[in-house]
Amino acid sequence: MTGRAMLAARNELTGAQAVAAATTGERSVSDLVAASLDRIRAADEAIGAFRVVGEEAAIRRAKELDDRAAGLLYGLAVGVKDVIDTADLPTGYGSPLYSDHQPAVDAAVVRSLRQAGAVVVGKTESTEFAMFQPTRTRNPADLDRTPGGSSSGSAAAVAAGMVPVALGTQTAGSVVRPAAYCGIYGFKPTRGWTSTKGVWQLSGQLDTLGIFARSAADLGLAYRALHAAPGHAPPPRARPARRTIAVLSGEEWAAPDADVRDALRAVADMLARAGWDVLEMAMPPSWLRLPEHHETIMAVEVARSLHQALGPQVRQISESALAIVEHGDRCPARDYLAALEAREAALAILQPLAGAADLLFTPSALGVAPEGLDFTGDPVLCRPWTLLGLPAANVPAWRRSDALPVGVQAVSASHDDLGFIRDLVSIETVLTERE
Amino acid sequence: MTGRAMLAARNELTGAQAVAAATTGERSVSDLVAASLDRIRAADEAIGAFRVVGEEAAIRRAKELDDRAAGLLYGLAVGVKDVIDTADLPTGYGSPLYSDHQPAVDAAVVRSLRQAGAVVVGKTESTEFAMFQPTRTRNPADLDRTPGGSSSGSAAAVAAGMVPVALGTQTAGSVVRPAAYCGIYGFKPTRGWTSTKGVWQLSGQLDTLGIFARSAADLGLAYRALHAAPGHAPPPRARPARRTIAVLSGEEWAAPDADVRDALRAVADMLARAGWDVLEMAMPPSWLRLPEHHETIMAVEVARSLHQALGPQVRQISESALAIVEHGDRCPARDYLAALEAREAALAILQPLAGAADLLFTPSALGVAPEGLDFTGDPVLCRPWTLLGLPAANVPAWRRSDALPVGVQAVSASHDDLGFIRDLVSIETVLTERE
Repeated sequence: MTGRAMLAARNELTGAQAVAAATTGERSVSDLVAASLDRIRAADEAIGAFRVVGEEAAIRRAKELDDRAAGLLYGLAVGVKDVIDTADLPTGYGSPLYSDHQPAVDAAVVRSLRQAGAVVVGKTESTEFAMFQPTRTRNPADLDRTPGGSSSGSAAAVAAGMVPVALGTQTAGSVVRPAAYCGIYGFKPTRGWTSTKGVWQLSGQLDTLGIFARSAADLGLAYRALHAAPGHAPPPRARPARRTIAVLSGEEWAAPDADVRDALRAVADMLARAGWDVLEMAMPPSWLRLPEHHETIMAVEVARSLHQALGPQVRQISESALAIVEHGDRCPARDYLAALEAREAALAILQPLAGAADLLFTPSALGVAPEGLDFTGDPVLCRPWTLLGLPAANVPAWRRSDALPVGVQAVSASHDDLGFIRDLVSIETVLTERE
Repeated sequence: MTGRAMLAARNELTGAQAVAAATTGERSVSDLVAASLDRIRAADEAIGAFRVVGEEAAIRRAKELDDRAAGLLYGLAVGVKDVIDTADLPTGYGSPLYSDHQPAVDAAVVRSLRQAGAVVVGKTESTEFAMFQPTRTRNPADLDRTPGGSSSGSAAAVAAGMVPVALGTQTAGSVVRPAAYCGIYGFKPTRGWTSTKGVWQLSGQLDTLGIFARSAADLGLAYRALHAAPGHAPPPRARPARRTIAVLSGEEWAAPDADVRDALRAVADMLARAGWDVLEMAMPPSWLRLPEHHETIMAVEVARSLHQALGPQVRQISESALAIVEHGDRCPARDYLAALEAREAALAILQPLAGAADLLFTPSALGVAPEGLDFTGDPVLCRPWTLLGLPAANVPAWRRSDALPVGVQAVSASHDDLGFIRDLVSIETVLTERE
């Protein structure tokens, strides 16, 4: 490892532990929030996960909560990606064009966080408009490497133990990829699972809110608090005792390196030893061009969103962002329509697939976090799942010999987010028991 | 009137009357089918509604039915637009490129017709690929005028009394417009109301199967037999005794002439006298550009469909069709996406609108059927409703002093097709009582 590592200490509480401690009175909300702020103060100068820390507001809010009834996220310190509006903290959307921007109202998910008793301690760094122009954020596992993007700060803040849970967004691979690089859980639920009101819009078809945590159970905790329509969650299904995973190498889309192949194989072996059925899955022909179709749809929608939001100022965005806008501007309608139709065709396989396997396991990224801070890594292996709107999560399954995290991606062919989280919790048990 | 008129005689049976006569045994199916074939023989040389008449097959099928149990459409002679596949009759899609084409299987709706006991007597003329290149068909109300298109033959066959019911398709205004020009009912139900399997695809987003008939009740008869999932039809709603129509002039989209304005006013007055509440409706700002957005979406999808279906042969289609394909080829994705988003924005008004009025009344076309056979008329006033996917029907409400039909268009802001048909039946009663 070339840089220093600043990972969360083993004694950092998970979100569920923190909420439990606050709810039983074992620790006050003020105490929990102070611990989070202490950790940020100690570590964030080196890491740069937070764009803004709302220290005073967080302390004040924690004091208020000390005397109030507990909610589902009572006392949970949360970091919020800076493309998500907050009424008490500036929101810069990762762009100098919005450096002084102060939204008047909270995004819907921020309101839900607060209503559930969470404390927003600050806004985490986002790449420019949640695309590819990097932030200053460093990877807590190796300070000389990127944490990935676009939810760079949220992933780093959780990995470094500054907060148990943080919110991000994914339009291509902005939750799963940084989670893989930083060695934590990153969950992009089913498209539309919660409101994106008050979240910077890149693509109406693709933008999905995501959750970072160091434990699978915390994904469920945050999910339940933020779900748009709890009554609409599918009822728990009767699940067979034996679970099945299908391993999809993803190499038809782009070649993951040996570290990733090793991780995928190791996870499959561990699950097989723990009694899971493990199948190899061939790439369905209708899925072959999904990354390309995703890029087409994203470019067209990004171009439309940025033109609408920025007008002539769109010329002032970074070269990498402008290249996407220009790709979208040039794209003929026939390519966009072909991509939409290809998505429909690709979805046709889901029902039989969901019948054959409970989860797919496939790489989250092409390798460990790239060196340097000027490239947030390639989202190619996340694009298909965002396009299909399926629940997908990085499982922090493996560390290579130099301790750099190598994630694998779990994907569900059904839209049962809560069942998916239950499976992740089972898998976490299998993977941690080996330690 | 410049040409001879060949309208249905007053004693032609409606579909419901024919089915009732066959079901009670008052007339045999063979007798009913023979009457339809006689009428075609007598009138179709002048009108040219049918591309192919399957006389032998129809007689044979009628004989079989004479000894069978009655179905919902028992003994009904039906004309089927020649863009809808039939296994026993060639299907030319209105193009010389398919002049010898014989499908191997019936379209889903043709199978439903036959299962319900109807007899397909022939294939009716369609413009080229259901677009704008005219057929040889003449308007039965005036043989020197177009019957409209693209479902030219189906509209003319029903208006001339050759069949009580015929099937058409609408992608822009191909059912409502020819029904207006020919003076009959033409109903385009809610998008997706029945399968388009085996129907020539112009636009996956817009193509909708439609029904022609001389009575509103026949629309319901055919609708119930062809509905894709009868269980999914909304249950009949409790309806207030007083019904409300909102009159939308449509002049922001294109200026209807005085004949049309007279017809719209006359229908509104008759309904008001019959106890309906009549409101004037202002054009919602979000609807102003709907015809243009429809044209964009249609051009892009037509281009894709024709390239896929025809390959290099696309160069052999008519100039008018090629112009649409080239429009679609040139269209940037941003315009297509803007059109899709404008449709979403336009749909936002439907719920309050459905609460305020049971039906909209608006022109079906800009005037009476244009003179000559080289132009099927302008579908501009049908485009918005096809784009929004709403139930829309021509109501043959009025004849101008020279007896040429002037239709008005009824549109529902809800997707309750059956409730819409019930309203049409009530309106038919009001409109025919004046006679």
